[in-house]
Amino acid sequence: MRPYAFGVDVGGTTVKMGIFHTSGDLLEKWEISTRTENGGEQILPDIAASVREMLKKRKISMEDVEGIGIGVPGAVRENSVVDRCVNLGWGVVPVRDILSSLLDGCRVMVGNDANVAALGEIWKGGGEGARSMVMVTLGTGIGGGIILDGKILNGAFGAAGEIGHICINEEEDAVCGCGKKGHLEQYASANGIAKTARKMLDETTEESSLKALEKVTSKDVFDAAKQQDKVAVRIVERVGQILGKALAAVACVVDPEVFVIGGGVSKAGPMVTDVIRKYFVKYAFHASEGARFELARLGNDAGIYGAVRMLM
Amino acid sequence: MRPYAFGVDVGGTTVKMGIFHTSGDLLEKWEISTRTENGGEQILPDIAASVREMLKKRKISMEDVEGIGIGVPGAVRENSVVDRCVNLGWGVVPVRDILSSLLDGCRVMVGNDANVAALGEIWKGGGEGARSMVMVTLGTGIGGGIILDGKILNGAFGAAGEIGHICINEEEDAVCGCGKKGHLEQYASANGIAKTARKMLDETTEESSLKALEKVTSKDVFDAAKQQDKVAVRIVERVGQILGKALAAVACVVDPEVFVIGGGVSKAGPMVTDVIRKYFVKYAFHASEGARFELARLGNDAGIYGAVRMLM
Repeated sequence: MRPYAFGVDVGGTTVKMGIFHTSGDLLEKWEISTRTENGGEQILPDIAASVREMLKKRKISMEDVEGIGIGVPGAVRENSVVDRCVNLGWGVVPVRDILSSLLDGCRVMVGNDANVAALGEIWKGGGEGARSMVMVTLGTGIGGGIILDGKILNGAFGAAGEIGHICINEEEDAVCGCGKKGHLEQYASANGIAKTARKMLDETTEESSLKALEKVTSKDVFDAAKQQDKVAVRIVERVGQILGKALAAVACVVDPEVFVIGGGVSKAGPMVTDVIRKYFVKYAFHASEGARFELARLGNDAGIYGAVRMLM
Repeated sequence: MRPYAFGVDVGGTTVKMGIFHTSGDLLEKWEISTRTENGGEQILPDIAASVREMLKKRKISMEDVEGIGIGVPGAVRENSVVDRCVNLGWGVVPVRDILSSLLDGCRVMVGNDANVAALGEIWKGGGEGARSMVMVTLGTGIGGGIILDGKILNGAFGAAGEIGHICINEEEDAVCGCGKKGHLEQYASANGIAKTARKMLDETTEESSLKALEKVTSKDVFDAAKQQDKVAVRIVERVGQILGKALAAVACVVDPEVFVIGGGVSKAGPMVTDVIRKYFVKYAFHASEGARFELARLGNDAGIYGAVRMLM
């Protein structure tokens, strides 16, 4: 294996980039803007130019580069063709072929960003050492990435690991971002937790520090729960129950060794994994009860780590 | 590859056996009794003796046998050691080593019976040609087997595909066979359908041919629905909704190309797959909506086919 590799994580606002030793050490990371105008036609040329600049700065020859791994926010077909990235303005884009031709035929591997981040976490993060993992990203929505036997599970239609869209309430009236109703992320993402909190606060006459807030966030809920605010504790328990039950169902399907919890909500720390695990054990099939729950460790770097890992 | 192979499917009452050409053709199948007395110590010697007898009868030398594939009703560790088969009286049994030593060091592969049957169905049955499949066996309970990229998914604790134990009703009082409550198989296995039917019949004043029956079976429900019995049609819809919603959750995890529905309930034919698929589409994440639904085709032979497939 050649000594250097690039990891690239394309987001709607910035592209995160890193240069690695192929031993796994991150040498340097940086960001460039994502230029989404004109159908995002400048994104790949910008990335290629930034790779060349870094090579020049570090006096590294292209011959010493193993490849470029790249995670994108959309579905990726098996042949590394990307099929729509709404946030980038992309339709069908043969990312591998374009980027490779911009970089002298360099090897390029492409993956969905959530799946790639999961690969990063099992390599150097919360799932380190495990062979199978389900990564759950509790952010604006709920993202998921599944690693089995060290490899990303993409699914027949690119939708493996879309656990935020498990329907948990068929009687819900509010619509999920995907257009259907009653999905997990409507109740237990950062936004979902805020909504769940608002509803539970409205339904109780009990006092709570949260009632003084104009807008309650997921962070507010966990902070108040840590201060023993009783209503906040109940909200955390309810969210833990929703997530623990859903992940117990996930375990009935893929039975992973470890669940890694990431995203903004996970910044509340072990309280998050503890309450999810408590209800997971209640609802899981007995054989799967031993699955571990870990916090994600790589934060925003999971994508560039996983992108490099794809090359190996 | 050598020209012959044996497929063995060990059940609590009989052991199903088959001799195959390794091209995939079943040459002959037969059964022997499962002797469960004394901790099931005679089961593997009986299988070995039956293999030798067949070789003698067909004048085939052990050198022309590629191996023995064997499915067992219990958890199988990665090293082909079986960890408890309650129905066989087995504790921890190194099946591969014992059977191999009884048959001159012949190659032996061991798998969980539900997973092995799934492998049979994707090889020569309802999932033929697919690369990923979820097999759902609607029998006394609900069994599941998951094939990804042509291989059985076992899970970190041997519990992958245990979809009958997805909790769908946290308020249920009745206990599932596994000891927990509100699991899918309590409502939608053959036994579960009978219970669901009894409950819905008790709750309606509407006339139904089912009310005349002393004991309503799953088959009775589907037969009556085919005769347009309105209550029976509603029961079928309810069961389809329960299964379709659960399989939509399964698709959010592994996103398979095809679901294959087997077991006694599937004998009712396309009405079963049609009604499950109808609700699956309602609840599925949009990208997975195109998953196919097929009836299992190998019936009781799925296990011996899949057992042979493991050797390849």
